[in-house]
Amino acid sequence: MKNFKIEYPASEKVYMTGTIHPVKVGMRRIKLCGGNASVYVYDTSGVYSDPSVEIDLDKGLPKLREEWVKDRQGDCITQMFYARKGIITPEMEYVAIRENMNNAELGIESHITPEFVRQEIAEGRAIIPANRNHPEAEPMIIGRHFLVKINTNIGNSALSSGIEEEVEKAIWSCKWGGDTIMDLSTGNNIHQTREWILRNSPVPVGTVPIYQALERVDGKIADLSWEIYRDILIEQCEQGVDYFTIHAGVRKEHAQLVKTRKTGIVSRGGSILTKWCEIHNADNFLYTHFDEICKILASYDVAISLGDGLRPGSIYDANDESQFLELATLGELTLKAWQYDVQVMIEGPGHVPMNKIPENMRKQVELCHEAPFYTLGPLTTDIAPGYDHITSAIGAAQIGSLGTAMLCYVTPKEHLGLPNKDDVREGVITYKIAAHAADLAKGFPGAQVRDDAMSKARFDFRWDDQFNLALDPERAREYYYANGAHKEGDFCTMCGPNFCAMRLSKQIV
Amino acid sequence: MKNFKIEYPASEKVYMTGTIHPVKVGMRRIKLCGGNASVYVYDTSGVYSDPSVEIDLDKGLPKLREEWVKDRQGDCITQMFYARKGIITPEMEYVAIRENMNNAELGIESHITPEFVRQEIAEGRAIIPANRNHPEAEPMIIGRHFLVKINTNIGNSALSSGIEEEVEKAIWSCKWGGDTIMDLSTGNNIHQTREWILRNSPVPVGTVPIYQALERVDGKIADLSWEIYRDILIEQCEQGVDYFTIHAGVRKEHAQLVKTRKTGIVSRGGSILTKWCEIHNADNFLYTHFDEICKILASYDVAISLGDGLRPGSIYDANDESQFLELATLGELTLKAWQYDVQVMIEGPGHVPMNKIPENMRKQVELCHEAPFYTLGPLTTDIAPGYDHITSAIGAAQIGSLGTAMLCYVTPKEHLGLPNKDDVREGVITYKIAAHAADLAKGFPGAQVRDDAMSKARFDFRWDDQFNLALDPERAREYYYANGAHKEGDFCTMCGPNFCAMRLSKQIV
Repeated sequence: MKNFKIEYPASEKVYMTGTIHPVKVGMRRIKLCGGNASVYVYDTSGVYSDPSVEIDLDKGLPKLREEWVKDRQGDCITQMFYARKGIITPEMEYVAIRENMNNAELGIESHITPEFVRQEIAEGRAIIPANRNHPEAEPMIIGRHFLVKINTNIGNSALSSGIEEEVEKAIWSCKWGGDTIMDLSTGNNIHQTREWILRNSPVPVGTVPIYQALERVDGKIADLSWEIYRDILIEQCEQGVDYFTIHAGVRKEHAQLVKTRKTGIVSRGGSILTKWCEIHNADNFLYTHFDEICKILASYDVAISLGDGLRPGSIYDANDESQFLELATLGELTLKAWQYDVQVMIEGPGHVPMNKIPENMRKQVELCHEAPFYTLGPLTTDIAPGYDHITSAIGAAQIGSLGTAMLCYVTPKEHLGLPNKDDVREGVITYKIAAHAADLAKGFPGAQVRDDAMSKARFDFRWDDQFNLALDPERAREYYYANGAHKEGDFCTMCGPNFCAMRLSKQIV
Repeated sequence: MKNFKIEYPASEKVYMTGTIHPVKVGMRRIKLCGGNASVYVYDTSGVYSDPSVEIDLDKGLPKLREEWVKDRQGDCITQMFYARKGIITPEMEYVAIRENMNNAELGIESHITPEFVRQEIAEGRAIIPANRNHPEAEPMIIGRHFLVKINTNIGNSALSSGIEEEVEKAIWSCKWGGDTIMDLSTGNNIHQTREWILRNSPVPVGTVPIYQALERVDGKIADLSWEIYRDILIEQCEQGVDYFTIHAGVRKEHAQLVKTRKTGIVSRGGSILTKWCEIHNADNFLYTHFDEICKILASYDVAISLGDGLRPGSIYDANDESQFLELATLGELTLKAWQYDVQVMIEGPGHVPMNKIPENMRKQVELCHEAPFYTLGPLTTDIAPGYDHITSAIGAAQIGSLGTAMLCYVTPKEHLGLPNKDDVREGVITYKIAAHAADLAKGFPGAQVRDDAMSKARFDFRWDDQFNLALDPERAREYYYANGAHKEGDFCTMCGPNFCAMRLSKQIV
């Protein structure tokens, strides 16, 4: 297998150290020309972008958190548990440093201190998904008072790709800026695919355990049971999965309400569990066994992402009764998980027109007691298959600016097929844009530093700096040179030298 | 030269006739399988998609409006002039029918009647750009109580393309859904390029006459004068240009304020006129001769698009004093144009973070007396060159949902080079998405019909119908079959047969 290294142009991997704990937080320093100050950016690429570290996918990444977790024993070792006791863990200090990339250099004031992180986690407003058995991952925080994060879905299906391809996609996602990865594999080799991804992922990994449970019973929904599911949960906790999507809010009586919808149930987990309830004429076993789930997860510090099994799959179905009834159930389950000090976030839609997006955010905060919101898009129209990264980025930026903590990316292949590497890149960059637009709108401390550096580079016609500061330097360079532009031109390539507004603007006394 | 025809899959060109005037409004009927009702969609492709019409670019398109305009003689023949007299023109009835595509068939109630159109134009809240010398164009309306429109910029620069390529881009834009075209040529053959575009464009064409004026004086800004500009205006009015961007709001004293900006002046027209004011130590001749401009335009019915010469070119510069001072001047000029019954819209930014977008819309409505707003994006972050169609679609959808009437597209090449055909397609579809998301958010009558038809086709696994209903059927098909998917599969290609949520959903009793 190939060795993967990640390189960014004119960039250097630097580390900032903690003062409470011996943490070493990696970040990327982009060097600019002409005496302009370097820009530090949040870096999801882990040691893949550190030239001093040798990468060997067979061995896996260095175990960054090994020392931190080795003494964490017992029934409950979660970040929430420590936070509520007033303890600032290394993970908490790590994310506080990480969220303040430009501030140390630029003297921007920020409210994000290790103590602030601790408080937010203690209150349930933020989570650090960090299974003790995934020491390779660098801590990151999900909460509405922090930078908006993005998740990348990867994973094979019965129709599609192999293990090596999925690991490559995972690293590829980290290169472009994905903050977490969900492995949604449903095909063969689920366990082994996940093992490779976990051992080589510098970001937290989430899964949907019901998928593997269904594989275990050969796709026979009737044969699913709590016992089978529990075994899968423990298997994945042991492996190191950092958060689980659990559709415990699916209730038989709510699912009946979807009959008036255009697109019924579009969540895989939601449809499986609804069908199970119907076959057995029983309540969802994830709901009835939720306490036991919490007890298991508390001993590994795996976070719960409460799945929205009844999320709308079309504009027509948005914000309907079944959606909001389930959200209320997710709110109940949140309080229960918090009794066990288990960290929780809440999954959200889906397909929602722009005018109905604010209600989603408002209801989520109210019904789910400020637990972080994690949405898929939402897609703001149904009519653009092939461009759903864009239909959804519009909704994602909007809901992010209103307080959603993490955005699940959507690729151009949504509704049509599984994404390849190009689609992953397109989806991740599109969602970095949505998340960053939201950070700017929220006035996040230091978020505008990179924009300002880019704008100054534009006005100075420092083309290389513009490319190097871009979210996708490779594409920016490619497009610029596609027109046969000259590197040194002190005019904008769209207008030509005689019509360059910025050139004229400089001449104005 | 090639003959161009436009074909859409499973679609038929149909015409709906007027009851007041003998107008024949073209639209596209998308036929669906399995007894599902056809969907009628707004059609910008003109007779290029009518198989009964032969296309000959040398001869130009049939002159649809020849009969309507032949008796319009005199100093003032504008739509606003007739509207204020209480007259419903054929153009007004045409657009009323055009804005109600699905309603006749589906019995959706709509407030958009010919009389409503007349009132909106009389009040200045909407415009129909329709030069009497461009009878080839199909009437369309721009105003916040109508469907959100999109504009495509094309045109060669000194660095770039030839005439044939530009005409091809114009037709290409119409194919994908562009509502108007701006020809921003600044290189050679400006007059002839425009002539070809006008004679072959089924949509209104806008220009920025100062560009040609500057070519006329060999790029020497000092040599620009009102007389030269006036000659160019008349030349372009005679040719048939439907609207002019006129940077009459650029005032010397406001331009001084941009010195505190990161990116100064980024409007080409704005920088040229500011420089001219400085050289001559005089007020902008477009401002001082604005009455004469209005008189000329009134006799052709050319609309004014008041340019925002001081629009912000970076997040840092958004919503600053110089921007809003200019906007107030544009408001004054609007009232003056209305004295001459000249139709007006107002151009807007640029680069604006999401949290500052609502203020732009609010101030525009207030300062410009409800004249339609026409914005470029706005781009919601500066850091994604190569993806600025997306950074700007986020802002465009937001400002569109707040009332902006037309959105000027941005392509992936923004800031890097001139768009090629692929970029035009990507830009147009991206902006159709933004405009449609805004129409849905505004609750425009009938806007959701296409989304609902798509969603039903998804739930029924009618794949061909999904492709045919898509904004870009070719890409949807391409992506679906890229994975080796089977046409007849009654499961979603992302999940495979055992994990198809909608398939399971259908089985639930």
